[in-house]
Formats: sequence, structure tokens, C-alpha cells
Amino acid sequence: MPFPPPETLIERLHQGDLRVLSRLITRVENGAEGTFAMLGELWSSRERGRVLGVTGPPGAGKSTLVDRLISAMRSAGHRVAVLAVDPSSPFSGGAILGDRIRMQSHAADSGVFIRSLGTRGHHGGLSRTTHEAAILCAAAGFDRILIETVGVGQTELEVVGMADQVLVLLVPESGDVIQTMKAGLLEGGDVFAVNKCDRPGADSLIGGLVAMIEEGANLHGSERSPVFGVSALAGDGMDDLLKQLCGRLDAGRISPRQLPAVDWAARLLGEEVGRRAARDLVQRMAEGGDLTDRAEELRRGTTNPYRFVRALLDES
Amino acid sequence: MPFPPPETLIERLHQGDLRVLSRLITRVENGAEGTFAMLGELWSSRERGRVLGVTGPPGAGKSTLVDRLISAMRSAGHRVAVLAVDPSSPFSGGAILGDRIRMQSHAADSGVFIRSLGTRGHHGGLSRTTHEAAILCAAAGFDRILIETVGVGQTELEVVGMADQVLVLLVPESGDVIQTMKAGLLEGGDVFAVNKCDRPGADSLIGGLVAMIEEGANLHGSERSPVFGVSALAGDGMDDLLKQLCGRLDAGRISPRQLPAVDWAARLLGEEVGRRAARDLVQRMAEGGDLTDRAEELRRGTTNPYRFVRALLDES
Repeated sequence: MPFPPPETLIERLHQGDLRVLSRLITRVENGAEGTFAMLGELWSSRERGRVLGVTGPPGAGKSTLVDRLISAMRSAGHRVAVLAVDPSSPFSGGAILGDRIRMQSHAADSGVFIRSLGTRGHHGGLSRTTHEAAILCAAAGFDRILIETVGVGQTELEVVGMADQVLVLLVPESGDVIQTMKAGLLEGGDVFAVNKCDRPGADSLIGGLVAMIEEGANLHGSERSPVFGVSALAGDGMDDLLKQLCGRLDAGRISPRQLPAVDWAARLLGEEVGRRAARDLVQRMAEGGDLTDRAEELRRGTTNPYRFVRALLDES
Repeated sequence: MPFPPPETLIERLHQGDLRVLSRLITRVENGAEGTFAMLGELWSSRERGRVLGVTGPPGAGKSTLVDRLISAMRSAGHRVAVLAVDPSSPFSGGAILGDRIRMQSHAADSGVFIRSLGTRGHHGGLSRTTHEAAILCAAAGFDRILIETVGVGQTELEVVGMADQVLVLLVPESGDVIQTMKAGLLEGGDVFAVNKCDRPGADSLIGGLVAMIEEGANLHGSERSPVFGVSALAGDGMDDLLKQLCGRLDAGRISPRQLPAVDWAARLLGEEVGRRAARDLVQRMAEGGDLTDRAEELRRGTTNPYRFVRALLDES
């Protein structure tokens, strides 16, 4: 199937064509030719979509919460896109969509768009892909964008790091406040919630979070992030949490953690230049020229990656 | 303090000088000048150190297990280095060392070296730093190297992805087998263990893991990874697990997941070239030339990162 010229596609994207949105997200995931220019054109749409990141350990109930957020935002008349980020395996590149089944209640609603993002691209690239998918969703008229991560680590924090606001969802079983700190979550959130708050350890986790946030706020003179105790399944405390999150997006609040444009540009440039260099190297090693012999030395172990790359850099 | 010339340092490293080892790891973390050449020299030492990665969600009991592994390996006459990888916050760059306190029983033993690695460097770079620190440890005479991650995500899997063998440690509370799959852990391990195996849900998690591993092995014709039920605190099942892990390292087993030298070279080249490009950009924006004005446009929002970078790439 011939790919239509970008102008037509972008027009259809702005009209809210979901098939085009899906195809363009796939192109962004694959780092396809032309996406860089396209994102330059669409960047200004980003402001129309307000982005909430939801992160926390597996089993914290993120999908249930996102489901409730979708309903609340739809009731308020918003169009809602959900980007479910599965860092999944760096070895297989696969993405498991099990949780998406829980969101089927919204499947027939054309005002809701749900998409999983896996690790198809290069390592480290998932936060960039997610950011770019959010730009596309905003351009397609989704004015609320939810980014849900699976798991919680550096990658997930980077993924939600470009959101306007970030909710960190915890459960008593996920560990104490020290472990939360160690995972970097305390600095990664604008709002915190402890789910399954009727279980043992919840009160101590909530108390610990409040104390740590208070200490951090005093130290840095920053705002105190609110901490909610909720039970997503029973519904306890959920209304307050939903109200808080929707209110922050409605007010257009931007987290102080969001990456400035200058830093985003430096990162983009480094990634693009690096990607091209790695691609060219693989190509030159494969195509039978001088580098093919030297790649063979690498395989045999008569040279090593550091020597090999250093020689290449010295030659360039 | 003037930094001694590399030849002297490398000599002292090979003699097992732990202060030099620490300093060189810091230089690697900071991406200091000269480390690239140094690693080219030391690469051949890597084979002398056999590397075990231990990953799993927070609270799975990784530190307790690592503590037991240290004791077992020391009893067998090995010198043991532990690299504790804290992906921590990408926003603060800090690293919390709480768990290290548990390892104080080995603090007086000069045959044990324990070091935390945080996210000081650039995003995505933690797996590289860890690999490079492992090369340094091997060069300093540590023939067993344990890499312990905090949390479990794409970053952590990449970090342990360069190990010779990887143990994935789970607990019933960390979620079911589907969530384990979603985190990519099933493909990331050579050996699996479910800790706190007396708790509810342990049998079903173990059963699910065995079934999934069986299915994957049948599909790909690969080896079946063993699954252990253990209680690290009570000691149940621990001897069998320790024996399995130590036996695999003793036999020099290399995981099929380990990145080939050619791919490592392509990654190194891409990162080096990208890092230089990003660094040069930040420098040029700061030093008051033509790019300073254009950076100001980025800050004001009259251009955006994609347009800005595209223009730069077109000019180069």
C-alpha cells in the first residue's frame, strides 16, 4: 500500500482520523523517515493536549485508576487518549496487552483512544516515542492524554517525565517509603496515592510519604505534593483523587520537572546523530568493505569494542 | 590532587588497589576523558570476572540473597565485587545507600568490594557504566561480580543484560505471572526464584512461571530455566539456589542474551558520537555565537526542538 503524502495525512490527523493516528504512532515508534519533520510541524498542537502520567509498581492498580479517570474526563466532555507504556523486554521487543482488556468498557467510545507502546525502538528511546505519540494524539484532537506505565524504574520515570502532571500510585506491598525513595519515585510525582489503603502498612506508608515530602519541600522551598489514601476497587477516596488530578489538568498546571525545550533539543540532536552513526556502522560492517574484516576481528575477539570504536572515532 | 598517569593507575588496579578501583569507577561514571582508551586496554580482563545479575521488584529480598551469595563465594575462595545499581531518580541523580547497611558483615573483608552506582551519567547510560565497572572489578582481581538492581524495568534488565547469568527474584506480592511477563522478566533471566515462598500466592506464581518457561522453551527450542521456591530469611531452599547459581558461574556459562561484541561496538559508537554532538550543542548555545540566538527562540517558543535540530542536521 503506497503511503499517502504527509500533507494529506496531517490533514486527516487534524480531523481526528484514528486510523491515521495509529499509523503515525507506528511510524514514530519505528523512527520512520519523515517523522522528524512531521513532529516539527505538529509540535504546536502539543499544548492542546494536557498530559497526565500515572506510574507505580506492577499490581498497584494503575489500570483500574486509569479506567476511572477516563470516565471522569469523558463526563466532563473531554476526548481522552491513553498511552499504555510497556517497557517489556529489551530482548524480545514484545508488548503484552493483557490489561487493555479491563478498558474494554470504553472500546465503543470514539472519544477514547487506547494504544500500547512497547520497546520496539532503540534502548532509551521509549520516553521520546511516548512524547511523540502524545504530540500526535493532541494533534488528533485529544485534549486529555493519560500515560500509564507498567513497572517503575528509571525508564518509567523518564517516560512520565514529559507529562504535565504525574501521579505516583503505590500500594503497601510495594515496599516502605525508603524503597519508594530508592526507586526515585518521591521526586518523580506531583500527586501521590496509596491504593489498597485498608491493608496493613498503608497508614505507615502514607505517614512516611507525607513526612518525606514535607522534608523535601522545606529543603528546596518547593510545593508540598498531596498524598491520598484510596481503594480503587471499593471506591474509597477515589472521588477526591480524581477531582485533584482533573483539576490540575484543567488549570493547565505544568510540573517543574518537565524538560525545557533547549534540553529536549540537545537530547534529540544527540540521539539522532548517534542513531545515524550506529546505523551507518552496522551497514558498513555488513556491506563487505574494509569494516567487514575489522568486524570479524571483533567476533573472533582479536580486538574489542572499545579499541574498535576508538579507532573509528580517530579516523573520522 | 594531580591525577597519576594511566599506566601507573592500571598497574595499581591490577595489583588490587581498591582506592584506585573506586576512583576509576567514578571516572567511568562521569564519562571522564581517557576512560574509553583505558577500557580498550582492560577489556581482556573481563573474562577473569564471572558476572551474576540479580534483578527483581523492590522488597523481593535481593540484598539478603546477595549477602548469602557473598558468603558462599567467599567460602569457595573467590574475591567478590558487588555493584548495587540504583536507577534512582533521573531528576536528582542521587543514590540511596540504605541497603548497603545490611552488607556490613562483609565490610572488614578485603576480599569483598561493594559499590553503588547511581544515575550520574546520561540517561540510558547505566547499563554501560555497570558493564564498565565490572571490567574494572575484574581487572582488580575480583573473579566473581554480583550486579544487584533496585527495582525492575527496562533499565534494570539492560543493566543485568551484560551479565554472564541473571537471577530473577520475585515474591508473591510482586504480582502474578502475567505481570512478570509484562515487565519482560521471563525473558530476562537464566534462573528464577520466588522468595517468601510460604506466603499466599507463591505456589500459583511458581506454577505459572514453570508453565510459561516450558511454553517458551518449546516454542524457541531453548533451554528450560529452573524455578526455585525459597525463603531467604528462614533459609528454606536457599542452599539449592546458591548451589545452582555458583555452579553456573563456576562452569563459565554465558547467557544467550549477552550482547555480541559487534552490537556492543555499534552501541558504543552511537553513544559516543551522540554524546559529543549533544555536548557540542550545549556548548555552542552557551558561548554567545549564532546558536545562542536560536536557543533563545527555543526558550520563547518561536521554534521547537524538532525544527531546531532538523535545521542543525541539514546544515552539517
